[in-house]
Amino acid sequence: MDALSIAGVVIGFIAIVGGNYLEGGSLSALVNLPAAFIVAGGTFGAAALQTPLPRLRLALARLSWVFAPPPLDFQGGVAKIVRWALAARKEGLLGLETVADSERDAFARKGLQLLVDGSEPDSIRAVMELETDLREQRDVDAARVYESMGGYAPTIGIIGAVLGLIHVMGNLADPAKLGPGIAVAFVATIYGVAAANLFLLPVASKLRARARLESQYREMMIEGVIAIAEGENPRAIELKLTGFVEHR
Amino acid sequence: MDALSIAGVVIGFIAIVGGNYLEGGSLSALVNLPAAFIVAGGTFGAAALQTPLPRLRLALARLSWVFAPPPLDFQGGVAKIVRWALAARKEGLLGLETVADSERDAFARKGLQLLVDGSEPDSIRAVMELETDLREQRDVDAARVYESMGGYAPTIGIIGAVLGLIHVMGNLADPAKLGPGIAVAFVATIYGVAAANLFLLPVASKLRARARLESQYREMMIEGVIAIAEGENPRAIELKLTGFVEHR
Amino acid sequence: MDALSIAGVVIGFIAIVGGNYLEGGSLSALVNLPAAFIVAGGTFGAAALQTPLPRLRLALARLSWVFAPPPLDFQGGVAKIVRWALAARKEGLLGLETVADSERDAFARKGLQLLVDGSEPDSIRAVMELETDLREQRDVDAARVYESMGGYAPTIGIIGAVLGLIHVMGNLADPAKLGPGIAVAFVATIYGVAAANLFLLPVASKLRARARLESQYREMMIEGVIAIAEGENPRAIELKLTGFVEHR
Amino acid sequence: MDALSIAGVVIGFIAIVGGNYLEGGSLSALVNLPAAFIVAGGTFGAAALQTPLPRLRLALARLSWVFAPPPLDFQGGVAKIVRWALAARKEGLLGLETVADSERDAFARKGLQLLVDGSEPDSIRAVMELETDLREQRDVDAARVYESMGGYAPTIGIIGAVLGLIHVMGNLADPAKLGPGIAVAFVATIYGVAAANLFLLPVASKLRARARLESQYREMMIEGVIAIAEGENPRAIELKLTGFVEHR
Amino acid sequence: MDALSIAGVVIGFIAIVGGNYLEGGSLSALVNLPAAFIVAGGTFGAAALQTPLPRLRLALARLSWVFAPPPLDFQGGVAKIVRWALAARKEGLLGLETVADSERDAFARKGLQLLVDGSEPDSIRAVMELETDLREQRDVDAARVYESMGGYAPTIGIIGAVLGLIHVMGNLADPAKLGPGIAVAFVATIYGVAAANLFLLPVASKLRARARLESQYREMMIEGVIAIAEGENPRAIELKLTGFVEHR
Repeated sequence: MDALSIAGVVIGFIAIVGGNYLEGGSLSALVNLPAAFIVAGGTFGAAALQTPLPRLRLALARLSWVFAPPPLDFQGGVAKIVRWALAARKEGLLGLETVADSERDAFARKGLQLLVDGSEPDSIRAVMELETDLREQRDVDAARVYESMGGYAPTIGIIGAVLGLIHVMGNLADPAKLGPGIAVAFVATIYGVAAANLFLLPVASKLRARARLESQYREMMIEGVIAIAEGENPRAIELKLTGFVEHR
Repeated sequence: MDALSIAGVVIGFIAIVGGNYLEGGSLSALVNLPAAFIVAGGTFGAAALQTPLPRLRLALARLSWVFAPPPLDFQGGVAKIVRWALAARKEGLLGLETVADSERDAFARKGLQLLVDGSEPDSIRAVMELETDLREQRDVDAARVYESMGGYAPTIGIIGAVLGLIHVMGNLADPAKLGPGIAVAFVATIYGVAAANLFLLPVASKLRARARLESQYREMMIEGVIAIAEGENPRAIELKLTGFVEHR
Repeated sequence: MDALSIAGVVIGFIAIVGGNYLEGGSLSALVNLPAAFIVAGGTFGAAALQTPLPRLRLALARLSWVFAPPPLDFQGGVAKIVRWALAARKEGLLGLETVADSERDAFARKGLQLLVDGSEPDSIRAVMELETDLREQRDVDAARVYESMGGYAPTIGIIGAVLGLIHVMGNLADPAKLGPGIAVAFVATIYGVAAANLFLLPVASKLRARARLESQYREMMIEGVIAIAEGENPRAIELKLTGFVEHR
Repeated sequence: MDALSIAGVVIGFIAIVGGNYLEGGSLSALVNLPAAFIVAGGTFGAAALQTPLPRLRLALARLSWVFAPPPLDFQGGVAKIVRWALAARKEGLLGLETVADSERDAFARKGLQLLVDGSEPDSIRAVMELETDLREQRDVDAARVYESMGGYAPTIGIIGAVLGLIHVMGNLADPAKLGPGIAVAFVATIYGVAAANLFLLPVASKLRARARLESQYREMMIEGVIAIAEGENPRAIELKLTGFVEHR
Repeated sequence: MDALSIAGVVIGFIAIVGGNYLEGGSLSALVNLPAAFIVAGGTFGAAALQTPLPRLRLALARLSWVFAPPPLDFQGGVAKIVRWALAARKEGLLGLETVADSERDAFARKGLQLLVDGSEPDSIRAVMELETDLREQRDVDAARVYESMGGYAPTIGIIGAVLGLIHVMGNLADPAKLGPGIAVAFVATIYGVAAANLFLLPVASKLRARARLESQYREMMIEGVIAIAEGENPRAIELKLTGFVEHR
């Protein structure tokens, strides 16, 4: 559970609605269906046009990671690698076969498999780094879906506002109708800017940070597996990998 | 058929027109020939001035890829390479000659030809990567044509709006004429912003994603061909290449 | 003759002037000397302050390339290299001396000279790539002059508009004078935005594309010369270089 | 104590408040609780949503570095390394063990430890550069928290202004109420733009500069430790490292 | 003396003041002390907060380089290196000792010293490139001070304008006071935008160009010194280095 993410959404929401209340505005002034229709529809339409389907699906699925990210245990990862190194010392690389079978993380299992197969360190690194790069790229692409929606939303909001203003301008001669009309038009701007700045862009940013964190975890795994392949001693491996834990 | 692309265009269009309808605006308020003339003409003029002819042609041709992209079968690509590897095992690299002749994909055929010619792995990689880079660059350049049009359209829209406002300002003393005049002027802004955000920029983005996908496919081909050249066994090749399929 | 460039300028110009006409505006409303003075002067002043003299001169000279670019014959370049390779096969590298003397392209001549001098492939590559990089950087710098002018023009246009508005504001009490005054002020915005988007930025973009095209041509030359230095056979060289021609 | 940072904040504050006073505005016109609530809440909410908790904590802790940065003594660092080199000359690398025990800087201590352990220069470099990179990345991430807040603040300020304008528009028919209402609405813009430009963005920039300075210090340490490991003579090491001091 | 820089400042100034005069505005309308106070104070405050003191000092010192840059003689540099190469041919590298003593350029002297000391080419390159990189980074950092001031100035100008508008809004009911008040408020915008676009950003750009030019000069020096260390013949060195002169 990422309480900070939830707090961020709540704080942002309260800031707008509460601020409006403090200024003496009514909540109903912020509710406008046509504006919501334009901003949500336009933003989603643009995203749908620009995003390949698998990426769009992944982006939607990743949204849950913002509020409830799956655990990622660096300390435990180091401990795990040290256990492998000890096992490899005692029983040789082939002794890792049973460890590999019971390992639940697919990436770690692949690393173990490569060790058991007796692959060269360089080729282990190549295979594992290719996968790390492809995964990070895929995760960053998912984050970028929100980023680009955060780029479209404010401009679509402006379209909504201008649409409203055009409608209003037809009644310029009657100032009494003018004000409320403009007010309605401005709501679209708020929807677009708020959706982008209080939700879409921060979400993209958090997903990016997560993607990099996962890559760092995987890079730690790679360094550990390579070190085992090169027969380094378990304590040296532990020392080396703690750098990833301390300065994350 | 990329249904998502078509849905994206339709959703974006409905959002604007439907939102306008919900706000009580008439559809006719969104139709304005001079504004369309300015935005379309200005945007295309800028694109024509900045783009070399072959690139402009390619960009127009690539537009069909947004809605009906040619198939790109990663799984099938792996299967194909594994078949080649098996053939090379049985009959030697020369045995790939007949395979090469019947291969329809020009890039794959080139790779096979290089294998049959007995080129060094490094030189195969150099030739194939050069081609991959040049192709991706060319495809990205085509996508950039839409990107830059998406940059020009809103500013040209503003020119259209200011032109309209200038025209309107001549009648400031008569408020009854003021409103409708401004309304007309604002339509140019909507045309520019909507064309950019609901069509041009998303199209550019999808073409970029496609260009990278093609490069990944080609990189997979290269890895496969190199692995065959280095005599790796077919199962190892398959394992290696599945990384490209899984984490795309 | 780059007809597309000329068409681009003409189309952009017609879009603005024609659109203004269609909206019912008079052409005279778009002519405003003080606005032109501010935008042109300010933009050129900023460019002069920021650009070293030789670069500014080169930028002005390169402008002709946008409309009448010197020819750049990739196919012919490949044919030329193949002829050199054949000559080198028959008469040895020294046999290229006479070819070098009659070669008109300075860059190609330098490459031939290096071949005749018997330089190592690595050192030929170093010398020729240094020159290619320096040339491209210089050409890109020239393109950037237009790019930065395209950045300054709209903001200077805004200065012009604000200047006009300040002037107008002195007469707020007299609405009859207000409108035309604002109209005049807005013309500066149009000048700035149109100059940037319909001329300066596209010109910069085309010059950048040209600079990269020249680099690709030179890189093709380098690959060819290196291949000759390494004694590759003419047909292999031709195959290698066609990649540059096909996927440009 | 970084007097310049404090001066910067004070000068910026005086410029706004003093300028307002010189223009004849009252200080009270700049105080508006709802606007502050919206801008501060929205900006912090966005930052909280986008930032992982450890990074947010670090960012807050690093704020003190802007005004009172911990000392970083390049000259002293060179002197220290030269002392180590002399000690290593006299007593061998093992003689650095006592030095390592009394060294207070954790990074330098790690380097000494690696020397004492007799690690290869390449492996020392790898370990120390990994740590330097991770640390710099972490520090830059902390700086980016302020950068992104500096990006959100002005747009949230605009939300505040539009909220105010909507509220005001309800009273368009009564011009006497209009002016003060708009004034209040504008204060939110000032809060957002001023917070970003007079505090958040400069703070981010200074923290970035500091992060790079620390990396340079660590790179100097790495070069020194490597040079000791390679047995270079102390004077040569000093000469080499002064480059870091002179041209910082 | 860089006449172009001076011309740039003068042209930009004349464009604004002259354009204002042509539009019929009075010069006094452009003079506004509170606006100047806000823009100058806010911009400098932000710069002071974000910039470390040595960098700020360097930036101020480098300003003179924009108008009176110290000479940088590429042709003379080549000639100098060729003289060194001839001396090294005749008297050996030790013969360069007297040349080094009389060399006034510190960077060139360091290179000569390294030659005389008999350092390896690779280590000469490492030391000299480190210094070149650090110097360029420092110079670019100084240029960036103006760049960031150019980023702050317009937004601070907007703060000034909004402050003015708030003040003005208190008198909305009295249109006679409205106009002049708004006019005064707009002057802050002009100050901010003009300071950025007609001075700060171009200055940053010119200092960046200069920094790169110096790096190119130093890279030429490095190539020359390395070539001497590797015993290349003087004429070959001259040919190699002319690339730096011709295509600058």
